Amino acid sequence: MTMNFPIKRKARVKTINKANLGMDLEGLINESNTYYLNNNIAVIHKKPTPVQIVKVDYPMRSKAVITEAYYKTPSTTDYNGIYKGKYIDFECKENHNKTSFPLANIHPHQISHLKNIIEHGGIGFLIVAWNVYNEYYVVPFEVINEYWENSLKDGRKSIPYEAFVKQGHLIKEGYLPRLNYLKVIDEIYF
Amino acid sequence: MTMNFPIKRKARVKTINKANLGMDLEGLINESNTYYLNNNIAVIHKKPTPVQIVKVDYPMRSKAVITEAYYKTPSTTDYNGIYKGKYIDFECKENHNKTSFPLANIHPHQISHLKNIIEHGGIGFLIVAWNVYNEYYVVPFEVINEYWENSLKDGRKSIPYEAFVKQGHLIKEGYLPRLNYLKVIDEIYF
Repeated sequence: MTMNFPIKRKARVKTINKANLGMDLEGLINESNTYYLNNNIAVIHKKPTPVQIVKVDYPMRSKAVITEAYYKTPSTTDYNGIYKGKYIDFECKENHNKTSFPLANIHPHQISHLKNIIEHGGIGFLIVAWNVYNEYYVVPFEVINEYWENSLKDGRKSIPYEAFVKQGHLIKEGYLPRLNYLKVIDEIYF
Repeated sequence: MTMNFPIKRKARVKTINKANLGMDLEGLINESNTYYLNNNIAVIHKKPTPVQIVKVDYPMRSKAVITEAYYKTPSTTDYNGIYKGKYIDFECKENHNKTSFPLANIHPHQISHLKNIIEHGGIGFLIVAWNVYNEYYVVPFEVINEYWENSLKDGRKSIPYEAFVKQGHLIKEGYLPRLNYLKVIDEIYF
């Protein structure tokens, strides 16, 4: 099977609902980050997708074409940056389930990365989209880590929806930006 | 022309001299970052090379192969992370000239990115390798920016070697890690 992406592609449509106008979580977060950057609120960027480049062609008089490459497992989280002088670092995940968020969605090195960040005085968290409920939660790393550690001791391999409601922080959807997650960060960390 | 890279490739050999054992600047910085991470000194990672993926093949029973992709201009710097609770952000450049470092080596959006970082309370700088002299300098963003702004007003389009000696901070080469650039960061910022 071959998939073609248009070069100037927009965020892929994954879920369609009135609130997010068909934009996926990554698209919404990127939109928020652009807003934060343009309004001098924070400097937060998505890291490029890590790719292992194997073969590159240099056609005459045109730019290099990568003709063989593979997706690599990311060694850190997708987003980091600076907000109010603090280092912040997070990962975004979409969840299509109704009752729980499987921990298998998170890579073990993302857990150890976020743990390191917290130890060095940074702010680390997850943003999880519950697509079924059209809800977005900020979950501090400490909460995730509790479930993670427990799962390693034969505990449950997922985080129940109730934990998001109780220990997570719902991002209220707005207008500009639609997903103002830093407002929630303010309430938790500042 | 086609170039093949072995999948598990090591840092490419660009300059050979006794001190850095043939490793290029990126290789040396990555080595330092691994040392800092393993010794719980700092969490600093290189961002993946930004690539625009156009075509992906999904061969039966094997992993996805990217068959058409292009290098993108990076919108930020190559490295960022956290050190002593502070957000740090920098770009590495190799210079093969003897007398000056051309400002054309730096992208305008890297300048504005570093400017933003400083405004938000982060630490921003450049690490420049003078390959001819086998010297490595940390140059605070403020110094780079002075030359940059001046170049926009028809000033010189490069930074002279003397400016590195006077306004930069030489990284003394050591053993573990070979390029202990955080020692210099300590002297400048802490």
